[in-house]
Amino acid sequence: MVVNLYGFVGSTYTKRAAITLHEKQVPFIFHPIDYTKKEHKLPEHTAKHPFGQVPVLEDDGITVYESRAIARFIALKYSDQGLPLIPPISDLAKTAAFETAMQVENQQFDVWAARIVVEKLIKRLFNPDYEQNTALVDEAITTLNAKLDVFEKLLSEQAYLAGDEITLPDLNIIPLGVKLQEALGVDILENSHRPSVTKWWQRLTARPSWIAVQDGVKTVEKY
Amino acid sequence: MVVNLYGFVGSTYTKRAAITLHEKQVPFIFHPIDYTKKEHKLPEHTAKHPFGQVPVLEDDGITVYESRAIARFIALKYSDQGLPLIPPISDLAKTAAFETAMQVENQQFDVWAARIVVEKLIKRLFNPDYEQNTALVDEAITTLNAKLDVFEKLLSEQAYLAGDEITLPDLNIIPLGVKLQEALGVDILENSHRPSVTKWWQRLTARPSWIAVQDGVKTVEKY
Repeated sequence: MVVNLYGFVGSTYTKRAAITLHEKQVPFIFHPIDYTKKEHKLPEHTAKHPFGQVPVLEDDGITVYESRAIARFIALKYSDQGLPLIPPISDLAKTAAFETAMQVENQQFDVWAARIVVEKLIKRLFNPDYEQNTALVDEAITTLNAKLDVFEKLLSEQAYLAGDEITLPDLNIIPLGVKLQEALGVDILENSHRPSVTKWWQRLTARPSWIAVQDGVKTVEKY
Repeated sequence: MVVNLYGFVGSTYTKRAAITLHEKQVPFIFHPIDYTKKEHKLPEHTAKHPFGQVPVLEDDGITVYESRAIARFIALKYSDQGLPLIPPISDLAKTAAFETAMQVENQQFDVWAARIVVEKLIKRLFNPDYEQNTALVDEAITTLNAKLDVFEKLLSEQAYLAGDEITLPDLNIIPLGVKLQEALGVDILENSHRPSVTKWWQRLTARPSWIAVQDGVKTVEKY
């Protein structure tokens, strides 16, 4: 039985899915989908991902798309191996903190960070003359800084987003966080005014799972 | 033991949390937080929700914030009552479809719908002179129409987002979907070109859980 991951080699979403496979020590074959050739819009690919995006996971006849869905699925299916990434439902307090942290990563960080990355990097990839919407970027930077001040408060009281153990939302944040620093050219996540965020971020980006995918996702035959 | 829901009576996010409480038949006391008086920024509230937003759930000493986290928590904790909203982890195929659908609601619908609602309605609430960013709204409408064409394909093959049974992502989409129609003044979700989306949407908005909260969330002492 082989796990197949389809994605664009440099995509933050593809890397998000791959980090979880690494943390759960699930070998996988990586199938590159070339965005520059619009391979993600070919019928062969949209049969797997109807919205024509990446990544897509195929595991024993089951297809999953959307990076956070893939990460959850991997963490649930392979719960007995690698790092535990989702607390057991029997622990309601940890489950509450985990589900909250999952949405904090998505709604409080990703929404604003993605806006900055899209305006400053992604739209230029497809149109080098694209002029960023400065007002939109400025609003997103201001909002994100306010959000990160709250992250600082949370992370001064606990080591990770859902408590003292690392869970999925910590991993989910890494690829876009790195891309955000590239887009901004300043270390918004490693800032002396936010020492707890800085320490947390340095711990995350030093993980072997991130090191393994940061320069591009590759097939892993075994662990 | 009492379940407390804190929220803004007309907020789509607060309604999202309340729908799940209704579907799971969990009685709750509703504590209104008045946005117009900035009560969500008072220390008493930010002690519960550090980002100073609504809704917040308190259940037996456990605090959860972010509407989708509250909905998941309620669905998990009260799994034995009301409508089943999350498939059992033992069913991997259903779990894969469910996790994918959770992200489809969030990433393929909410991101674009929220942009339209914020530009056309929310920013004007706080500043009646606000002039919407027309380019941003137009891009969101175009994108959302393309996404809904994919929804049409999916929903022509199955009754709900994760399969033939209703699950959390179907409920999660209702409040913003209704607000989106108000913002656009046209029935983007009830459109003769998308008959399957239309039927699905009509089934969802006819649910007693939505009827109960559509005009404002209220305390429910018992079911």
